[in-house]
Amino acid sequence: MTRPLTLHPDRLFPADPATRAIARSLYAGVKDLPILSPHGHTDPEWFATDAPFTDPASLLIVPDHYVFRMLYSQGVPLDALGIPTIDGSATEQDPRAIWQLFAQNYHLLRGTPSRMWLDWVFAEVFGLDVILEPATAQLYYDTIDAALKTEAFRPRALFERFGIEVIATTESPLDPLDHHRTIRQSGWSGRVVTAYRPDPVVDPEAEGFAPNVQAFCASAGEDVGSWQGYLAAHRFHRARFREAGATSTDHGHPSAATANLAPDEAAALYARVMAGADAATAELFRAQMLTEMARMSLDDGMVMQLHPGVHRSHNPTVLARFGRDKGADIPLPGEFVRALAPLLEAFGNDPRLTLILFTLDEDVYSRELAPLAGHYPALKLGPPWWFHDSPEGMRRFRERTTETAGFYNTVGFNDDTRAFLSIPARHDVARRMDCAWLAQLVAEHRLPEDEAHEVARALAYDLAKAAYRL
Amino acid sequence: MTRPLTLHPDRLFPADPATRAIARSLYAGVKDLPILSPHGHTDPEWFATDAPFTDPASLLIVPDHYVFRMLYSQGVPLDALGIPTIDGSATEQDPRAIWQLFAQNYHLLRGTPSRMWLDWVFAEVFGLDVILEPATAQLYYDTIDAALKTEAFRPRALFERFGIEVIATTESPLDPLDHHRTIRQSGWSGRVVTAYRPDPVVDPEAEGFAPNVQAFCASAGEDVGSWQGYLAAHRFHRARFREAGATSTDHGHPSAATANLAPDEAAALYARVMAGADAATAELFRAQMLTEMARMSLDDGMVMQLHPGVHRSHNPTVLARFGRDKGADIPLPGEFVRALAPLLEAFGNDPRLTLILFTLDEDVYSRELAPLAGHYPALKLGPPWWFHDSPEGMRRFRERTTETAGFYNTVGFNDDTRAFLSIPARHDVARRMDCAWLAQLVAEHRLPEDEAHEVARALAYDLAKAAYRL
Amino acid sequence: MTRPLTLHPDRLFPADPATRAIARSLYAGVKDLPILSPHGHTDPEWFATDAPFTDPASLLIVPDHYVFRMLYSQGVPLDALGIPTIDGSATEQDPRAIWQLFAQNYHLLRGTPSRMWLDWVFAEVFGLDVILEPATAQLYYDTIDAALKTEAFRPRALFERFGIEVIATTESPLDPLDHHRTIRQSGWSGRVVTAYRPDPVVDPEAEGFAPNVQAFCASAGEDVGSWQGYLAAHRFHRARFREAGATSTDHGHPSAATANLAPDEAAALYARVMAGADAATAELFRAQMLTEMARMSLDDGMVMQLHPGVHRSHNPTVLARFGRDKGADIPLPGEFVRALAPLLEAFGNDPRLTLILFTLDEDVYSRELAPLAGHYPALKLGPPWWFHDSPEGMRRFRERTTETAGFYNTVGFNDDTRAFLSIPARHDVARRMDCAWLAQLVAEHRLPEDEAHEVARALAYDLAKAAYRL
Repeated sequence: MTRPLTLHPDRLFPADPATRAIARSLYAGVKDLPILSPHGHTDPEWFATDAPFTDPASLLIVPDHYVFRMLYSQGVPLDALGIPTIDGSATEQDPRAIWQLFAQNYHLLRGTPSRMWLDWVFAEVFGLDVILEPATAQLYYDTIDAALKTEAFRPRALFERFGIEVIATTESPLDPLDHHRTIRQSGWSGRVVTAYRPDPVVDPEAEGFAPNVQAFCASAGEDVGSWQGYLAAHRFHRARFREAGATSTDHGHPSAATANLAPDEAAALYARVMAGADAATAELFRAQMLTEMARMSLDDGMVMQLHPGVHRSHNPTVLARFGRDKGADIPLPGEFVRALAPLLEAFGNDPRLTLILFTLDEDVYSRELAPLAGHYPALKLGPPWWFHDSPEGMRRFRERTTETAGFYNTVGFNDDTRAFLSIPARHDVARRMDCAWLAQLVAEHRLPEDEAHEVARALAYDLAKAAYRL
Repeated sequence: MTRPLTLHPDRLFPADPATRAIARSLYAGVKDLPILSPHGHTDPEWFATDAPFTDPASLLIVPDHYVFRMLYSQGVPLDALGIPTIDGSATEQDPRAIWQLFAQNYHLLRGTPSRMWLDWVFAEVFGLDVILEPATAQLYYDTIDAALKTEAFRPRALFERFGIEVIATTESPLDPLDHHRTIRQSGWSGRVVTAYRPDPVVDPEAEGFAPNVQAFCASAGEDVGSWQGYLAAHRFHRARFREAGATSTDHGHPSAATANLAPDEAAALYARVMAGADAATAELFRAQMLTEMARMSLDDGMVMQLHPGVHRSHNPTVLARFGRDKGADIPLPGEFVRALAPLLEAFGNDPRLTLILFTLDEDVYSRELAPLAGHYPALKLGPPWWFHDSPEGMRRFRERTTETAGFYNTVGFNDDTRAFLSIPARHDVARRMDCAWLAQLVAEHRLPEDEAHEVARALAYDLAKAAYRL
Repeated sequence: MTRPLTLHPDRLFPADPATRAIARSLYAGVKDLPILSPHGHTDPEWFATDAPFTDPASLLIVPDHYVFRMLYSQGVPLDALGIPTIDGSATEQDPRAIWQLFAQNYHLLRGTPSRMWLDWVFAEVFGLDVILEPATAQLYYDTIDAALKTEAFRPRALFERFGIEVIATTESPLDPLDHHRTIRQSGWSGRVVTAYRPDPVVDPEAEGFAPNVQAFCASAGEDVGSWQGYLAAHRFHRARFREAGATSTDHGHPSAATANLAPDEAAALYARVMAGADAATAELFRAQMLTEMARMSLDDGMVMQLHPGVHRSHNPTVLARFGRDKGADIPLPGEFVRALAPLLEAFGNDPRLTLILFTLDEDVYSRELAPLAGHYPALKLGPPWWFHDSPEGMRRFRERTTETAGFYNTVGFNDDTRAFLSIPARHDVARRMDCAWLAQLVAEHRLPEDEAHEVARALAYDLAKAAYRL
């Protein structure tokens, strides 16, 4: 016997009836606002070619490390989920088999945001009305597969249906940005912009760093042998990205370390790094480059995003067989107070700079991030990130940052995802949780209700638009 | 005038009426499930001899460091509470005087779990119906003392009355396990199993380490002079513990450090340790031994438990006069990501291994433990431990781990206690708090109610049974 | 159109009606208790001279770094807010212009405690009944300015109107305490006491440390060239402060480090420090001095307060132009377990000593502070401090400390402020939040209601009176 799948209109709202009524009212004012997705990882090729997605498993399971990591943690082999291998050796090829296995383990996602996002996709995008379980797995497969073959489920159609006003992808400076060019030249009205993520040419520990920098400078017509040439190449590529709509840069460093060396010291550092750097030198170079990026942002107006503090690919067995981004990235303790001091000393008092901070270490919300953002004109707090992009994570973020940093030093929501179909669900969770938090403030007479409506709109739309200069 | 002692049937449930109703319904489904106590410190001699407990103070105050630490923190001397001294010098001998002093200070426990557990013991085990205060102290003493002299309050009778399906004690490899043998041979149906806690022969900084290892190898008929002999002695004693019902090992290390040395390096390390180790060598040996224990667990199926991160006996004055375990153990910051990497590289991908992690540093719940357990097949999260075995501690555990690790990477509840009479109260608190958390998820439409019932049962019974292979 | 300003009688109480009713009842029992303000930074000159406050901006904006930091973080220049410069160069002089600018940015404080405190001051102290916004700014200015010119708004009149039983200011040992003498000799009944804050003569990294110590010893008639002379000077000045009503000392160290050197080592350390100390020597000297202060407290009965863990003046640009205490102090991670061990080994078991611990790192509440305070007789926990003196901060403090340290190892509320007019608002927030927390315990049947009333009174009044020996 199947069980009904329903999305309750009051989901995520506080249970107390008076508070819930306030949350409902606040949410009514923001639920239909357009989606601004100023940081994420969708593939611009989707929107360039508008090709149909291939099948349910390839769309919803194989690329979603939130999902397959949980199954893996309970003993389901990644091979059986069709995760592709580095050496090309075969894993499960039958998307129906993958889907059935997923359905058998769907209960593992209880209590996780993935469950909420997926149920939204199933119900709202595909119109399914029964819960996914082994008995309904093939019904699900058939329904989704059939839909994906129709025009209405092409990427551009979904983009429009989802009410996306603008979405940012993230590219390396080595990327030719052809897909973005194709999109712009296609006449399609959807706004898909890129973001400048220079890690491959900024992180000496990145795979292929030296050849990356060679190519990076060569394509810019700059001298790879000089620090000034290297910096000029950044300026060249930043300009190129701005032409493709970029309003932001993004930096995925192991730590938040910054440095502000004298120009000759920086030049010498660059030379050392290009000759092959040890770990400390690599860290110093990344640190220096954040300050250089800030300096360039003051010139070209690009907003900086810093996503630090992850131990990437903690599991060498999984890395060797399946590669990076397979659910084995683990957060590290964060430190921002000493780390950011050099950059902030140089540019922190300049309101023209916007540096948006993210963390996976929630301990720093109240201890470091809110006090810093509540003082420096250049700093803003990004939304709860990755593992914390969840109802409880969002609640903790507001509870721990609002009283010291306020609402206006935050920048709205980022979905930060490649899971395109879940983007509306993710923004909806953020809007609901912000309304739930505001409703509590109103119910406890900590904020007048008319002001809460203004704040709700700011959190859902205005702050992202302003901070990301969209 | 006395004040009534009542245990409200809705205690610990959320106040919101709709959420409370859901919590009640969930709790009704789990409250009478048998108790699985897979990790604790009751004395097997109780169940072997079934001798009556001596008096109220010796049973409920003198051995309970949760209780006497709080009184001590407010200036009550440990002597006056009858805590025995190391040198045998006299402390208070009159259990009635101790009990009266305890009653005078019972208000200090307001807001603590000890207050809830003790009130449960008073009301449910002894049928008391007034609150403990100075005026009722002697009534309490008389009532409890009289009960303890009856058959119904012998250890085995209480074990049965409490609905305990299985209880694990914890023993050193040097323990002959005579009491467990006596229990098995007595014909009594109660299931009391041991657990293998090799700290005295694994921690070079443990008191008597060298003679411990000598005796450990000798009793196994193995050569203490060789690493292979030492490892074989572990295999011998693990087999001996398994015969006494053990399904788990337990490791109380200062940190979560693990190592995976080459065999010859490990052998050389063992030789250095037996010759007298400095702190770094001792740490490395403990680290290596966790990996060795994991290797043996893959052979014999014993579940590993790691309880790291306590500064033991922080107060030298109390240590010198009263010894260890006197309420002066203080948590330390936890670090698991780098610490566990060597062991996880070796065995973390093997679903046949189960390593259950505990922490006293709640900061690592969302930052380290949930991300690790949500990926590695070998890892599970133990319940909130020690200071966090409390309503707020349990709430924080679920709030911070569920969204990343789910429910199924947790293992139900451990009471981890020597306070036998409070064991049902502790499990009841855990069941109530889990139902309260699930009720919130249901009330906020984050989990269907029928699934919440399944999860409630899993948290109360199924997960512990499966994880501990009981 | 203006919007009404109202202070809801149920503000900060939980929304659930049953819980709110309990909170109301608890609060009714404590709301009118006298205010004990045992630690703060009001200026004794106010009460000595009883001169009127000059104008709204100088009273409420210019000195309040909670307020101007938030505006600064959003790009409002400190100059425009009239913050005085170190070099005396002009900043905005017109208090009406400052006030208007403040009103234009008042929305930035939504969700912060400053907003609640200020609204209370506006409504309760000045009788304003519309919300502050640009359109009402000049009405506000006129109303407040007119009030400040009346007798009823002089410092002593407000002190009495606020129901302050005793207030402690904080002075350096170099302070002649003339204002306190004037107050005592004036015949006014208000009790204003000092507190001994020896940082300028204890911290070798303090500005002017060596001349400070010279003056400190000279005024005591002691030999600055000897450790014994220096200690005797402390005893002299402590006695002098006690004559001015002091019952406490206060220590604003970078860390919680303590040391307990042998007397000859301490003497040698003093000599090194006076000759010019490096950072490690300075840290050791501060550490040693905490233990010396504890030793003296055992003699003279002064309660110690430790406020560690702030990176002072993180922003060198703001420091150079505007000086210290301009909203650029950022918390650091806390560590108390190892840091306090030397002092606790010496004096931690002595119930005659009271050492009150504060932190800006909330992570240590459950991991370190509650376990320490729940054991050592000499330790108590100060209320949530600075950034955490807020509704959410107070909630987290109780949630994370109560179950391990209980209520009776805490010491009531400190307002710790220079913002005199907001003192009743701050105590009111603390009383409301404590009643809200207790109401939750009662509603969840974790504490009987009659006991909650006792605890509410203890938290609002009794514990501060006892801990600070007022």
